[in-house]
Amino acid sequence: MSNALVLFSGGQDSTTCLAWALARFDHVETIGFDYGQRHRIELDVRPAVLAGLRKIADWDSRLGEDRVIDLAVLGQISQTALTQNVAIAMQDNGLPNTFVPGRNLIFMNFAAAVAYRRGIKNIVTGVCETDFSGYPDCRDDTMKAVQLALNLGMEARFVIHTPLMWIDKAQTWELSQELGGGALVDLIREDTHTCYNGDRTHRHDWGYGCGACPACELRAQGYARFTAA
Amino acid sequence: MSNALVLFSGGQDSTTCLAWALARFDHVETIGFDYGQRHRIELDVRPAVLAGLRKIADWDSRLGEDRVIDLAVLGQISQTALTQNVAIAMQDNGLPNTFVPGRNLIFMNFAAAVAYRRGIKNIVTGVCETDFSGYPDCRDDTMKAVQLALNLGMEARFVIHTPLMWIDKAQTWELSQELGGGALVDLIREDTHTCYNGDRTHRHDWGYGCGACPACELRAQGYARFTAA
Repeated sequence: MSNALVLFSGGQDSTTCLAWALARFDHVETIGFDYGQRHRIELDVRPAVLAGLRKIADWDSRLGEDRVIDLAVLGQISQTALTQNVAIAMQDNGLPNTFVPGRNLIFMNFAAAVAYRRGIKNIVTGVCETDFSGYPDCRDDTMKAVQLALNLGMEARFVIHTPLMWIDKAQTWELSQELGGGALVDLIREDTHTCYNGDRTHRHDWGYGCGACPACELRAQGYARFTAA
Repeated sequence: MSNALVLFSGGQDSTTCLAWALARFDHVETIGFDYGQRHRIELDVRPAVLAGLRKIADWDSRLGEDRVIDLAVLGQISQTALTQNVAIAMQDNGLPNTFVPGRNLIFMNFAAAVAYRRGIKNIVTGVCETDFSGYPDCRDDTMKAVQLALNLGMEARFVIHTPLMWIDKAQTWELSQELGGGALVDLIREDTHTCYNGDRTHRHDWGYGCGACPACELRAQGYARFTAA
């Protein structure tokens, strides 16, 4: 029986990856991280997204346990790592000053620790080089080095899958259409969350969000290209 | 000005690595991890060891900030990763059932996140292939893969130093003699802690400990070979 652990945040990308895994592996578990993220609303929508996925195809029988790991310590790192305590604010580079470099490496390590203990071979993550360039911990080179480090360090043979690495947001919408048809596209539109500002009041054809932040813009533009195709 | 961050647990190995760094770099900071370890006494001896190191050579002027990161979440991983809650106990393989595989990878990632924010280039860890074979996350191959993953994932040029990788415990004692003379050997004997059972009541020529656990045996045998040489 094949199995996988999906890094599932409640956003569009990780939901599409979860559907990708459900279409491919017999048993799929999920893991999320609570680290005081700005768009914490993502964590809140997770149960509704999981419930929605259970109604598609035979995915109910494939979807296993969900875990949320408390990584509040990431805030401790960013605080203690500064020479003085400072207020949380956005930096000129668009990252909050609580940003922990290589955070995604830490997520991968925790996911692998859980996968090891659960006897799971495949680890799936929605990292992507196409739309974002600011995060070196999401790059393909990095993920391949991480697989090497994890497999040497745990004497294991994990395979890290990155189904979104080379596709853009329009192709991510297309992938969800292929995987789960209109039901999955609708679920992603209605229940997944992407907006940096945590806005769930403004409704658009591509879902809820402020419509103005970079995350909303990417999602909206991708949806427009997807529906125009 | 050269600088380093040393993974410092309060044990013999990491104390020797810290001395190695103090003899080599202009500015040296330390990081420890509180994860509910069995021999938590290590954390308690850290301040005394640091104070002792300040009295050797010009190390007082080189020794910078010390941090202890709360990684109680590792306990959460081991608990939630089991299908049922079970009592903490030793397993047949000699590891506690709370053992998180690849734990040392997680430590390295957190250390690198702190080093990044502190502008520190060198990361020093006391991992060693010689005396232990059970921990794949301490091997030389693993550390080299971790350096690759960290540098790709953080767009950085960290150098991971492992001064103890290929030496045995007798040579570790010799190294401390070379680095800090009798004062350092005495400090390590008196103030560092190794015993798995957290025993600080039984005094031996090589330090405090139960004298019977594998960690005490290694330390005692190494000291005997060192003093006989």
